[in-house]
Amino acid sequence: MTTSFLPEHEVPRSLHEVAQQLRADAVRCSAAAAAGHPAAALSSADLVAVLLARHLRYDFADPTAAGNDHLVFGQGQAAPLYYAMLRAAGAISEHELLSYRQLHSRLEGHPTPRLPWVDVAAGSLGQGLPIGTGMALAGKRLDKLPYRVWVLYGDSELAEGSTWEAAEQAAGSCLDNLTLIVNLSQAGQPGPGRDAAAYAARFRAFGWHAQQVDGHDVEAVDRALGAAAAHPGAPSVILARTHAGPAGAAAGGARAIRVEVAPPLPVPAARRPRPVLPWSEDRWSDDQWSEEWWEAVSWSGDPWSDDPWSEVSRPGTPGSVRWLPPAFEPGSMESTRTGFGEALAALGSARPGLAVLDAAGSDATRTSFFARAHPDRFFECYAEQQMLAAAVGIQVRGWVPFAATFAASLTRAYDFIRMAAVSQASIRLVGSHAGVSAGGDGPAQMALEDIAAMRAVYGSTVLSPCDANQAAWLTGAMADLPGVSYLRTGGGPLPVIYQPRERFAIGGSRVLRSGPGDQVTLVAAGITVHEALAAADLLAEDGIAARVIDAYSVKPLDVATVRAAARDTGRIVTVEDHWPEGGLGDAVLGALAADSARAGGGRPLPVVRKLAVRSMPGSAAPAEQVQLAGIDMASIATAAAELVGADLP
Amino acid sequence: MTTSFLPEHEVPRSLHEVAQQLRADAVRCSAAAAAGHPAAALSSADLVAVLLARHLRYDFADPTAAGNDHLVFGQGQAAPLYYAMLRAAGAISEHELLSYRQLHSRLEGHPTPRLPWVDVAAGSLGQGLPIGTGMALAGKRLDKLPYRVWVLYGDSELAEGSTWEAAEQAAGSCLDNLTLIVNLSQAGQPGPGRDAAAYAARFRAFGWHAQQVDGHDVEAVDRALGAAAAHPGAPSVILARTHAGPAGAAAGGARAIRVEVAPPLPVPAARRPRPVLPWSEDRWSDDQWSEEWWEAVSWSGDPWSDDPWSEVSRPGTPGSVRWLPPAFEPGSMESTRTGFGEALAALGSARPGLAVLDAAGSDATRTSFFARAHPDRFFECYAEQQMLAAAVGIQVRGWVPFAATFAASLTRAYDFIRMAAVSQASIRLVGSHAGVSAGGDGPAQMALEDIAAMRAVYGSTVLSPCDANQAAWLTGAMADLPGVSYLRTGGGPLPVIYQPRERFAIGGSRVLRSGPGDQVTLVAAGITVHEALAAADLLAEDGIAARVIDAYSVKPLDVATVRAAARDTGRIVTVEDHWPEGGLGDAVLGALAADSARAGGGRPLPVVRKLAVRSMPGSAAPAEQVQLAGIDMASIATAAAELVGADLP
Repeated sequence: MTTSFLPEHEVPRSLHEVAQQLRADAVRCSAAAAAGHPAAALSSADLVAVLLARHLRYDFADPTAAGNDHLVFGQGQAAPLYYAMLRAAGAISEHELLSYRQLHSRLEGHPTPRLPWVDVAAGSLGQGLPIGTGMALAGKRLDKLPYRVWVLYGDSELAEGSTWEAAEQAAGSCLDNLTLIVNLSQAGQPGPGRDAAAYAARFRAFGWHAQQVDGHDVEAVDRALGAAAAHPGAPSVILARTHAGPAGAAAGGARAIRVEVAPPLPVPAARRPRPVLPWSEDRWSDDQWSEEWWEAVSWSGDPWSDDPWSEVSRPGTPGSVRWLPPAFEPGSMESTRTGFGEALAALGSARPGLAVLDAAGSDATRTSFFARAHPDRFFECYAEQQMLAAAVGIQVRGWVPFAATFAASLTRAYDFIRMAAVSQASIRLVGSHAGVSAGGDGPAQMALEDIAAMRAVYGSTVLSPCDANQAAWLTGAMADLPGVSYLRTGGGPLPVIYQPRERFAIGGSRVLRSGPGDQVTLVAAGITVHEALAAADLLAEDGIAARVIDAYSVKPLDVATVRAAARDTGRIVTVEDHWPEGGLGDAVLGALAADSARAGGGRPLPVVRKLAVRSMPGSAAPAEQVQLAGIDMASIATAAAELVGADLP
Repeated sequence: MTTSFLPEHEVPRSLHEVAQQLRADAVRCSAAAAAGHPAAALSSADLVAVLLARHLRYDFADPTAAGNDHLVFGQGQAAPLYYAMLRAAGAISEHELLSYRQLHSRLEGHPTPRLPWVDVAAGSLGQGLPIGTGMALAGKRLDKLPYRVWVLYGDSELAEGSTWEAAEQAAGSCLDNLTLIVNLSQAGQPGPGRDAAAYAARFRAFGWHAQQVDGHDVEAVDRALGAAAAHPGAPSVILARTHAGPAGAAAGGARAIRVEVAPPLPVPAARRPRPVLPWSEDRWSDDQWSEEWWEAVSWSGDPWSDDPWSEVSRPGTPGSVRWLPPAFEPGSMESTRTGFGEALAALGSARPGLAVLDAAGSDATRTSFFARAHPDRFFECYAEQQMLAAAVGIQVRGWVPFAATFAASLTRAYDFIRMAAVSQASIRLVGSHAGVSAGGDGPAQMALEDIAAMRAVYGSTVLSPCDANQAAWLTGAMADLPGVSYLRTGGGPLPVIYQPRERFAIGGSRVLRSGPGDQVTLVAAGITVHEALAAADLLAEDGIAARVIDAYSVKPLDVATVRAAARDTGRIVTVEDHWPEGGLGDAVLGALAADSARAGGGRPLPVVRKLAVRSMPGSAAPAEQVQLAGIDMASIATAAAELVGADLP
């Protein structure tokens, strides 16, 4: 085998000794923490010992090296074993090992990318294989590098459907660079308790190469890992029967055994190294992602060029960019999803690092435009969870993923989105056909909770464009955003109100109507911007001057503009195609509250009225839906007039 | 076969003619709507014709009859076929058929329970089999009735992992009363495109009885459905190869063919008929679920008794109840999860209609107490999505499900929760170990978005108790709540501050500290109540009088008490163990904004400061976490003192 990391003649001592060292260290750090779950660690120590000493090609001194294998430690409860492995590899010190689960330690209850050797966070069962599948896809189709992806699973993870979504995609994509090792100890979370043969049959039915081994027979494990790596054309699974063993076995192994780390194998240079983002050094400091932080950051509105429509190429920015956003004629009708789709296809030409994923809806989401232009960088994932996981997997290698599906369907993958934030992943999500304006398909197809869900993701960006030019520009702006960002698009045509290639800053807004005598402010985003503009016209007929704000950047919100409007007009109507909870209205209230609460300058909030969808929609035409929900121009005008008519104290 | 609904000698005309009628009606209603997806309907018309005429035991005149079979129409895109079936059965009129997708029609883009024959809403791929599995579990283990569950699937639904979670549970529970019919047309959403044999192998590997048929050979389909129903000990799947067929075939069949509906088969009476809830008649009216509605409803705080701790039995209320909530000594330490778990076990003795589901975490969630006391009504579902789906499935038959897992893991099932609301399902969710106070396990295990996500579910109730007695009482109150309700519990012990069996109304709150000279109000829920009480003590030492509100009912919020506090003190500090977006702080702001916006009485909002978790936590002890997040007593006291020190204008 050429895959051995430590050549056989250099293995300093027996694999059994390495495994005992791992057991001992896992137990010691669990004991120091007086917590944790050593059982999973004890049962899989032999598996990890063989993998580490004989098969994993990994330079612990250079964890971002392009040629490194990737190890996804799926069974989060075995974290002590992972940390024991880092100590065995010389990556962490004895002192750090014993800091497991302590305040400010990098060795958390479940491994996270606060440790440079961890690609993605563990701790949510059944995410390791889906994400590992994404990494293996990157290796095969994007990086075209010979690294392998190893995923270690606990048996209860086989009960999660996400595992089988990944099994489908990995086999369908012939990912023979992917090996899943399942620790069948039945000692962690309880699972259905099938035996190795039953699981092997399932994996084979999904198109996998499957082996069963005694997980404590290190030579058999070694042979199985070698056979897995050598099997062409299909991913491999090793179903290892294990047990935690007598407790004394661990204590007896507590000798100072060290595995020396050999230099990494020579590997081809990475085609796309992981970009160093300006905020990557201290991404976890306390206030960095707070609203105040977003507010303080001066966004240019264009991450790579001051003048992109003259097709300037800027070396030094990620993927030196030439791109021309699509242009839509003001006054014409176009959907925001088409604005996104055309921009994405154009951006794909300019940025070879861009990759796009969909979940069987590319015609609807308009990622089909990208798929036709750049089929080599388009991934059909069929299932929403797998789409999210694959996006997280490929961004580990520095690729820039956009993942799109129906906005309502993104709820299927909410745990994966939440965990992407814990993994410090940079992924761009796009949800189409959002809101009641989805129309005739009925409530199952209407995302009415998406903004609430996405705002409540740590460090997220939430964008809701109202015309195709704005959607196109924001698509470009998302490409360099860190963290989880979300673009909400609509299905139906809307009037184009902005000029082609007009620039829109993340954290910005557009004041579409204003004057010195404004009596009320209408804050809208997406489809409701058009209703608010029409409402302002209605109000003007009654002699009421209304300011209109297009708050396309729902998070971070343009708090300065909203606060100025509050001070100028004293009355605000927010209007959103979303449930009342957690959306644009709450974002506006939150911004005003933060203002009111500034120490030394307490200031009461203005009068605010929140218009949103408050009853379960049925099927109807989009215009009827907007009217029934009370977020149409007439409802907005009525609400605003009532506020103006009421006396302010 | 004895399972035929229409005895063979009574079948009025050929199955082919019935199928042609269905095709014609599906096309006609799609044409009238100028929308919809007739392809799926055309390809599966023969399957549905055979099922309707020969196997489905269903009284369309009495859709809630206990002995009825259940049909889950999974492939939402085939809605026109479902409506054509209703017309063929005489359940709807020609006029109503042609109202498909129109404003105010019950015939929505995807079927919903606005139609009395629809148990659960369709439209989210891969939910039909999981929910059907719940119904079949109810038939086998709860109702003990011989009804069958039929699920019709499109092929793309086999790409969703939720399908394989259900396959696991259905086979593991030997659900031979469950039949899945897969329309392998490859004409709907694109799927991975495996053939029938490949899928049959997968189902067999999961323990299913699998058959492959030509989906247009009605006699073969008839035989297969009969064989499926007759196969003992395992669920059955029929993989039917189909095609949409020439368009002319549909037009040619547009004759007035009617299937007469025979009287239902005699069946045993239901053990637990579907309860008629007071609001069930008009659950969809516009304002019924709004905050105003909640506010207007006078909750007794106890759905079934004025005096439960004297063990009064009240006939006439659902499931005539005798129960004694557990009692925890004030001043002792106990976790809210234990308060919930002990209450649930006690409630289970009093209410034979209660059923409990978990996803491999019963020791942690404390549903293990119920499982030990009532093993016949406890369901181990292993996967979160399957747990949600099974809960929705069993409540269709009037059972009262509680489903519990780690609060963070509920995000895995968010699409199922969203769809439960569309299905008008009444389910009770419990999430344990919420917030940073989960401590050492790290951010993967901390629910910090759960309140935002749950508030943004239509008609939901969100409860966050701060002590074990409160958790116990609220558990009882949840049992009769309609819609989706959520109880947030914590992992660690907290001081018991309420008396045993003290009553807590849904939509209520507790003012724990107040006086005429209050200068600031602290609004908290769950663990932060204890921090707020300690902060009030600190403030009192500085001569500042703080009101403390325990807002355990986050939705519906006790807006009257919050508004009164706003008027009395003018300054509010909200504090929550949750991200800043969409949680308690936003709920308070929303309530105040609604107050401020009342027509004719515009009133500016008070000064509000929102304390929440603003940086990604690591591993640390619970007390350290609360302090690091700035939601501890010292942070609260500082924020409140700053507000009091600032001049109010």
